[in-house]
Amino acid sequence: MAKKITIFDSTLRDGAQAEGISFSVQDKIKIARALDGLGVDYIEAGNPGSNPKDLEFFRHFTESGGSLGHAKLIAFGSTRRKGILAKDDANVRALLESGAGAACIFGKSWDFHVTDILGATLEENLAMIRDTIAFLKENMAEVMFDAEHFFDGYKNNPEYAFASLRAAADGGADVLVLCDTNGGCFPSEIFEIVQKVVEEFKIPVGIHTHNDCEMAVANSIVAVEAGATQVQGTFTGFGERCGNANLSAIIPGLQLKKGYDCIFPETMASLTVVAREISEIANVSLNKRAAYVGQTAFAHKGGMHIDAVAKNPHSFEHINPEKVGNARRNLMSEVSGRSTLLKKVQQVYPKLTRDSAEMGKIMEKLKEQEHKGYQFEGAESSFALKIRKALGDTCPLFELVYFKIISEDMASASQSINATAVLKISVEDEKLTKDGEPIHVIAAEEGNGPVNALDKALRKALENFYNDQIKNIRLTDYKVRVLDSNNATESKVRVLIESTDGVHTWSTVGVSPNVVEASWEALMDSIKFKLIMDRYTKYAVFAY
Amino acid sequence: MAKKITIFDSTLRDGAQAEGISFSVQDKIKIARALDGLGVDYIEAGNPGSNPKDLEFFRHFTESGGSLGHAKLIAFGSTRRKGILAKDDANVRALLESGAGAACIFGKSWDFHVTDILGATLEENLAMIRDTIAFLKENMAEVMFDAEHFFDGYKNNPEYAFASLRAAADGGADVLVLCDTNGGCFPSEIFEIVQKVVEEFKIPVGIHTHNDCEMAVANSIVAVEAGATQVQGTFTGFGERCGNANLSAIIPGLQLKKGYDCIFPETMASLTVVAREISEIANVSLNKRAAYVGQTAFAHKGGMHIDAVAKNPHSFEHINPEKVGNARRNLMSEVSGRSTLLKKVQQVYPKLTRDSAEMGKIMEKLKEQEHKGYQFEGAESSFALKIRKALGDTCPLFELVYFKIISEDMASASQSINATAVLKISVEDEKLTKDGEPIHVIAAEEGNGPVNALDKALRKALENFYNDQIKNIRLTDYKVRVLDSNNATESKVRVLIESTDGVHTWSTVGVSPNVVEASWEALMDSIKFKLIMDRYTKYAVFAY
Repeated sequence: MAKKITIFDSTLRDGAQAEGISFSVQDKIKIARALDGLGVDYIEAGNPGSNPKDLEFFRHFTESGGSLGHAKLIAFGSTRRKGILAKDDANVRALLESGAGAACIFGKSWDFHVTDILGATLEENLAMIRDTIAFLKENMAEVMFDAEHFFDGYKNNPEYAFASLRAAADGGADVLVLCDTNGGCFPSEIFEIVQKVVEEFKIPVGIHTHNDCEMAVANSIVAVEAGATQVQGTFTGFGERCGNANLSAIIPGLQLKKGYDCIFPETMASLTVVAREISEIANVSLNKRAAYVGQTAFAHKGGMHIDAVAKNPHSFEHINPEKVGNARRNLMSEVSGRSTLLKKVQQVYPKLTRDSAEMGKIMEKLKEQEHKGYQFEGAESSFALKIRKALGDTCPLFELVYFKIISEDMASASQSINATAVLKISVEDEKLTKDGEPIHVIAAEEGNGPVNALDKALRKALENFYNDQIKNIRLTDYKVRVLDSNNATESKVRVLIESTDGVHTWSTVGVSPNVVEASWEALMDSIKFKLIMDRYTKYAVFAY
Repeated sequence: MAKKITIFDSTLRDGAQAEGISFSVQDKIKIARALDGLGVDYIEAGNPGSNPKDLEFFRHFTESGGSLGHAKLIAFGSTRRKGILAKDDANVRALLESGAGAACIFGKSWDFHVTDILGATLEENLAMIRDTIAFLKENMAEVMFDAEHFFDGYKNNPEYAFASLRAAADGGADVLVLCDTNGGCFPSEIFEIVQKVVEEFKIPVGIHTHNDCEMAVANSIVAVEAGATQVQGTFTGFGERCGNANLSAIIPGLQLKKGYDCIFPETMASLTVVAREISEIANVSLNKRAAYVGQTAFAHKGGMHIDAVAKNPHSFEHINPEKVGNARRNLMSEVSGRSTLLKKVQQVYPKLTRDSAEMGKIMEKLKEQEHKGYQFEGAESSFALKIRKALGDTCPLFELVYFKIISEDMASASQSINATAVLKISVEDEKLTKDGEPIHVIAAEEGNGPVNALDKALRKALENFYNDQIKNIRLTDYKVRVLDSNNATESKVRVLIESTDGVHTWSTVGVSPNVVEASWEALMDSIKFKLIMDRYTKYAVFAY
């Protein structure tokens, strides 16, 4: 049977120490449910002594009847203050009051920290560890000991670092968690020191690492190889400074590659979606390059790589992306050579070959547009429209004649209506016009900001012509990226829009120094693409 | 003497395989110069056989007299095609034509790749490796062999993997570089296999890893511990899929912590600035959490951590940030407790104490604003203005009465002038008004986009009052972040602006569903902050 490694997630506690992260109670509940569904064993949810929001979170689960399926909630706190009894320490008592059945207590293992930061004697610190754990163990099912700075402490004074673990063991700790709090240790050190602790103590050992040397994942994995049976981290690596050990990289590493048992096997394929969900709730973009779960984790760009993966995915993929719920992507770009591009283009224009003049024209267009700041890797639908244009493919739909927008400041405006857009379009669709005479339409709408007003005006102008096709289009994502931010308010911006009609999803792009103009370009492309896809279904290869 | 580890950077070649990266020749030249200045030994600059832009790059250095100080340029290519002589292979010849004095050749070490992807016999592949290297060695000073998929190959067929290295050695290779091409290996495997190669061959061994398991840095470091003397990677970890081994984490790890000699000791303090410069050129945001060089790498948020670092930085910092040119930051937020905040606020309002009612008011304000989407960690100047307001500190300057903007599409507009802004402000500065009567000013300006027009109109309106103070303000950064991107064109956006007067730099923030409004808020704060800082110099603590 596979050896069980317990997974202890601290996104809600250590993760909240990251810059830019601030969770509401509702955010925390959502994240706890997502982690629980995945099969994480412990969810460290906060420090009820130092933050009233954390107490509210615990009450949601203990009093309001909201319960978790598999995971246990952990209340986090420190050893008692010096000079008092554990039962008289309000922060220690708050752990019991949280109603969580288990606690994780951090205490000092590095002699320098005891004397210089805490201002306690070495003996007193050991008593603080022992007492606090013993007091909590009388009232709680499980108490873990986070040996803060254990590795730095061991390197400085191995006897004292071991004495701190011994004090926790004497207090009745269920797990001795060795922390590389400053994140400065190397895998070889971690392996050696964990091995010594595992040999010495008959209590399960955990590992808690930080990423200050970009080695937190490796350090966690070598600790398991040395005998640790619990891994503490945060699901997407959030945490103070450089972050905590990234569980979304550690779990598949241990379970898929080394055969350990970490989470439910049947939920492994939800790894990617949970990582994205947590990032979304935290309002942080998930690192695109994240191992296993990132958007580019299985994205191939080099032409030879793409060709090889087509022959056998094993050639350039360390695992099958589906195992973690991710997917392979072949990127279009000048590096990937013509073959990827050709494949997609040929599905629409079957007669084009690698060496045809038209193909050269398309490649030229691609390079020229990339030079201007366009990026079609995330906006293939706009690219499809550019190809049509480059090939002189005439299926006219509509064109802008002009737009004019009047905006005012929100204080002067009524409610959230602070912009009015007027636009004139020329409908040139041969199915709609008589004798090729374009139909001119002028429409006006108001909205919250100029882009919103333009969006509404365009839909209004088109509704008499394409209502069936456009009525279900919904914008699902809107991103603004400043390309050359040192040009200040004249910087070029790239706007990416994602749209859906409920069946297909497609992305379009606009680039301009004027954010309204860039948004307009992406908006217009979005609607044009949908109209073309409805007419020529083969264009759906540029949607997903 | 410290053992020399040669550093081989492939940002310009493997880095360009990353999604979203596309370097111009000028970009490549700038990056090469930055790496050279740091003391990197080898710069792999591209594949002259497959990309004409790369040839242009090489010519810049070989023909135009542009030369590097320390680094050697490397041309990258593959072994000859099967069935022909190396000298008849156009791609191999392109390596010589590049004019680079050294080359790195990749060849197959994994038997499965030879038979199933390349479609060659195992013997033929060995000949291709040997021939190609031998041919190049006749004409070039140095030739390295990148043993592609060496570790996967070794795990599958160790004899064949070794045979591929033997072929390279027989051809005269100067370095045998072991590649974890798919990024799927674990540190313990890397250590063991590298050790075997180092024992077997008397030629320097290099390591080239990818980050698909988030262990590329650790894998590089354990390879050095096993005897490798060259590390290949990309400076900020750019690369296909999850990226390459991140040299900006490996170099300080090896040099500052383990005493190896990697780059010039005197340039170690430029590590952070070079990482930011390369990201800037690549037009990619440097990962904020990046080890050593990231913006948050030494940012402390937890209250206890901040207090401890104030006592002794060693307590929560694995190295002194100045050694790599980074800096400590103490973040303001609810997690950090009141102490950090109090310190800054007290520098401005010395009478405020931790428990005063005003301090409670400020904390309330901070929480309420963070809830709305503001984030003051990167915009302390806006926060300073909010404090003034929360405390009812009256030093009126000017207020907006209204603005109105007329925008039109760029095609209809003349050149890059497509927006006109009119605004009315009320100057209430008691140094400027008589009898407290506000002075109303209306000003209009045109610009490229609504934000640019507003920016210019505001400066014009203020120039009769504050010209000396505002004439030198220059916006140095403008960032737009969509907060809830699924609300499409009504999404809330946060605009961050960074401004400088040449002496101080300060950042301000605005939040609104309307990008123009959010930009306006940040713009107005920027100018107000500068006026206040000029009047009350103590406010400079909120600038940097």
